[in-house]
Amino acid sequence: MEPISYRQVRLTGGFWKARQDVLRRSTVWAVYDRFVETGRFAAFRCDWKEGDPQKPHFFWDSDVAKWLEGAAYLTAVRREPKLEKIVDDTVALIEKNQGADGYFNIYFTVVEPENRFTDRGKHELYCAGHLMEAAVAYFEATGKRRFLDLMCRYADCIYERFYVRRDTGFTTPGHEEIELALVRLYEATGTERYLALAKFFIDRRGEQGEENICGFPPNYGQSHLPVRRQTEAVGHAVRAAYLYCGMADVARQTHDDELRAACETLFDDVVTRKMYITGGIGATASGEAFGGPYDLPNATAYSESCAAIGLALFARRMLRFGPDGKYGDVIERVLYNGFLSSTSLDGRAFFYENPLAIVPELARRDDSVRAEQRLHLPATERQAVFDCSCCPPNIVRFLASLGDLVCGEDEETLYVHQYMTGTVAFRQKGGERVLKMTTRYPESGRVTLTVTGGDANVAVRVPWWCEKPFETVRGYAYFSVRENVPLTLDFGMPVRLVAADPRVFADAGRCAVMRGPVVYCMESHDNEAPLCDVRLDRRAAFRVGRHPTLPVPQLTVRAWQRPVQDALYAVRRDDFVPTTAVLIPYYAFANRGTAAMQVWHLTR
Amino acid sequence: MEPISYRQVRLTGGFWKARQDVLRRSTVWAVYDRFVETGRFAAFRCDWKEGDPQKPHFFWDSDVAKWLEGAAYLTAVRREPKLEKIVDDTVALIEKNQGADGYFNIYFTVVEPENRFTDRGKHELYCAGHLMEAAVAYFEATGKRRFLDLMCRYADCIYERFYVRRDTGFTTPGHEEIELALVRLYEATGTERYLALAKFFIDRRGEQGEENICGFPPNYGQSHLPVRRQTEAVGHAVRAAYLYCGMADVARQTHDDELRAACETLFDDVVTRKMYITGGIGATASGEAFGGPYDLPNATAYSESCAAIGLALFARRMLRFGPDGKYGDVIERVLYNGFLSSTSLDGRAFFYENPLAIVPELARRDDSVRAEQRLHLPATERQAVFDCSCCPPNIVRFLASLGDLVCGEDEETLYVHQYMTGTVAFRQKGGERVLKMTTRYPESGRVTLTVTGGDANVAVRVPWWCEKPFETVRGYAYFSVRENVPLTLDFGMPVRLVAADPRVFADAGRCAVMRGPVVYCMESHDNEAPLCDVRLDRRAAFRVGRHPTLPVPQLTVRAWQRPVQDALYAVRRDDFVPTTAVLIPYYAFANRGTAAMQVWHLTR
Repeated sequence: MEPISYRQVRLTGGFWKARQDVLRRSTVWAVYDRFVETGRFAAFRCDWKEGDPQKPHFFWDSDVAKWLEGAAYLTAVRREPKLEKIVDDTVALIEKNQGADGYFNIYFTVVEPENRFTDRGKHELYCAGHLMEAAVAYFEATGKRRFLDLMCRYADCIYERFYVRRDTGFTTPGHEEIELALVRLYEATGTERYLALAKFFIDRRGEQGEENICGFPPNYGQSHLPVRRQTEAVGHAVRAAYLYCGMADVARQTHDDELRAACETLFDDVVTRKMYITGGIGATASGEAFGGPYDLPNATAYSESCAAIGLALFARRMLRFGPDGKYGDVIERVLYNGFLSSTSLDGRAFFYENPLAIVPELARRDDSVRAEQRLHLPATERQAVFDCSCCPPNIVRFLASLGDLVCGEDEETLYVHQYMTGTVAFRQKGGERVLKMTTRYPESGRVTLTVTGGDANVAVRVPWWCEKPFETVRGYAYFSVRENVPLTLDFGMPVRLVAADPRVFADAGRCAVMRGPVVYCMESHDNEAPLCDVRLDRRAAFRVGRHPTLPVPQLTVRAWQRPVQDALYAVRRDDFVPTTAVLIPYYAFANRGTAAMQVWHLTR
Repeated sequence: MEPISYRQVRLTGGFWKARQDVLRRSTVWAVYDRFVETGRFAAFRCDWKEGDPQKPHFFWDSDVAKWLEGAAYLTAVRREPKLEKIVDDTVALIEKNQGADGYFNIYFTVVEPENRFTDRGKHELYCAGHLMEAAVAYFEATGKRRFLDLMCRYADCIYERFYVRRDTGFTTPGHEEIELALVRLYEATGTERYLALAKFFIDRRGEQGEENICGFPPNYGQSHLPVRRQTEAVGHAVRAAYLYCGMADVARQTHDDELRAACETLFDDVVTRKMYITGGIGATASGEAFGGPYDLPNATAYSESCAAIGLALFARRMLRFGPDGKYGDVIERVLYNGFLSSTSLDGRAFFYENPLAIVPELARRDDSVRAEQRLHLPATERQAVFDCSCCPPNIVRFLASLGDLVCGEDEETLYVHQYMTGTVAFRQKGGERVLKMTTRYPESGRVTLTVTGGDANVAVRVPWWCEKPFETVRGYAYFSVRENVPLTLDFGMPVRLVAADPRVFADAGRCAVMRGPVVYCMESHDNEAPLCDVRLDRRAAFRVGRHPTLPVPQLTVRAWQRPVQDALYAVRRDDFVPTTAVLIPYYAFANRGTAAMQVWHLTR
């Protein structure tokens, strides 16, 4: 199955169009302004000297590259001359400062020029990969070749050093990313050596003798085993997700069934044992890493925004092996929850980490300890600026290219993975077709599909939470759609109490509330403390409404609370008092200042 | 109310006599052997030189001092010439190496002699305090004065330097202990300056300008406020408990109502907001400290054995202000749970930390991180040896002097705080009396009291968990007991589900099982995993029996489990399957190798 590019998809209204409008109007500029202020764009002049302010960090290239990639997607959908000028100016600086051998990296030009390709811990190939992705995106968006050509020169340089001469200080990237970028560069240019290099990095990872990454054990960078023998998702979650994307790309392009099977095993390990209900991954701040199976703490969840994006990118690649609803289900879970929670409703502030509970009392543990002993607690409010700004530009590029996730096609069928109001241009039965999709999803589960240009075979993903009786094959329902004859589907939009597997100890005895794909949460702004002890009434109906102050829906339901006890420990009593629980979408939490929040609730 | 000394109490059978027999037979020697092996006793020769093995640590004096104190209690109850010889030999070394000014500290004699009384972080006065306690105990146990005299000289030295000349590098101890020890020395000798020095340390604590303790904020060492203005228990839990003991002692000896009121406020803050159901205190390994109110995590509980002991010592001192059942209730809670859990059933291995849950899966979080980032998880099995061995000798001295906790008296009444089989010698109405107590407590709540030597007024603490209708005043029921006429009381020994205050987020939605004073737990040895999801049937009766392999009782009860789900997250279902939950006393956990364990259970 081939994905339908975002360039063939136009969102014309509804939930995601509104988010993309905020992106285009606010977010892309908010991130740009911060990057200008912090010197990230100016760093491309490569004129920083010891003693100057704003010393370039070794990941700055990648921060800007992701922003450039996002700008490319935005201008492809609707010309944005101001964005294009910024990209062109940056590309001019890259050209000016690129080495004769094609090398380009800010940090290793102005800070440690003597140490190029020697330190596996310093994101050199990761930065290269993001620049390559941006270059491909900009070429495809605008037809301009310069950026692409520069990055091909850089890729040639890396190929020469890592693959031909093998004279570098390490063999495989410390932070994966370039693998998937090289496949993308190969697909854009047809140059076989880029695929060969990607395959080389994949094949060599986890072989004997790999260099250490910043003192971490090999697990941290997924270097503990050859990738084809890896069966458990471990280590740094963003690294892992990008690696798995690269593995899936190489497996597809080289018809490597063993590698593809490893991808499937790893995907299943993530989504059946190590994924938050929000689609977030990464249980622990230590190593920004996966925990063991079923270890999914809520208040100290890491669940980095970039990792949620990475999981969606991985799922999108798995879909290319053929339709299976589980991949679209995961993408949907990420989109409406762990991805969307990353950004404030005004689009100008961001979470790096996306906790599933905020327990303000926990911070008191730090009252009497030294700085280095403090508990790592995620931020309780989104920040406009942060030093390690991998997430904001990743959010920009991911949301700008959202259309990439909507549909796929094979020779016979158009597959609809995600439900958004808009149009999708595709070819089928030898002719041009346009699918028009109209829906208020996720407010409503009704979706109307109309095809113009001729009849078409259309398959639709029936979401995992849908209770209606659709006949499906691997999660898709198949329809023959007549030209101009609307097909209306109704998946419903049920509110349900969802339980985690009993082995998830953090959630034992608790339920989450989901309405369709959207996870809801309680905030102390709307509910009486302590949230941890509020019991949702299992028999009561949820009422769907609008939140009185936030521009989001809310759910209300009868609930019960225990009175405060006379003593810290007392014989269990059944004297619950009634209350009303108010829930808002998880993605909208922390838009009213710091508050207690929780996703997993007691029930009664 | 004056406490009845352990020297007036003889345990003759039952639960605690068995534990004291293990102590006398095994534990005291197990700890002694470890201390000999690690060079702690030899260090008293004060001949260590740079380059030698077994460099003395700055807390070694206190480790051995607590052992000496325990040996004193043991030999007081039944002569132990071998123990006495060890004490006498050690005292001889102290005498030999004591300075002309009375100073004695191993570390500051052989490692940093130039830095005496300059480093608030190095336990110098803490070691002094424990040596003073041991000296008083040995004098009272044997009548031998030498140790006591040496320690009076040392106390005089400290008095001269800290109180008269004030030429030391710090004003108050970094680790409290000497305050209570000085009051004890004053009570044994009548020397007023020891009380004055204790009061000085109490009065000056938290005043401006105190030196830092190892880089911690002032809270850590309870130096954030003058002690009379402290209302919240904060910082290092053992330090706090010892401070509060010293405050209570000084308040009593100086009739300082303001200081006494601070003690009452702090006691209530601990037991109504910061105490585990086991009587353990100290929520967090960082700083070995209290968390904020209601922050009582189970799997990462610190709950140091020494802190539980410290809380019981504090409660014992509060009892001297007058009978109030809450103090005896807390002592009972500590004794049967957080204290007893510290020691293996064979008496030869110890917990420093006493977790309330063992979740083996948590350790997987450390798979891919650097050593310094590893999660602090308590040990899952008791250790025979550990470097920081404050707890094992503390356990020895506390269990050896258990009789100190049993009774108190005022002019009119004998108060029975704890129920143990044995005899208590006391005076009342001008004559000698003996109380004989017979009970199978905590197997049964029946206690028979017989007084010989004349009639007596006896008040008994009615435990907080007792459901029977006793008429009480501040937790005590009062009886006039006729000579030789047995009084039989029955408190029952009910098995009950106990809930924590709804603000304790770690325990929300869960119940603990207690039988009388004993907290029970589930171990995976006896129950199917995952323990976290087992639901005890709220309506089913508990069956009391004997554990098939451990020498402890067990409880069994109908319970329910959820089957493993098809997916990590699925709509909540009610398809529970029945099972039987097996619970053992918390104090007996971790005697069969590493296993999952939990104290707080779901119910249904």
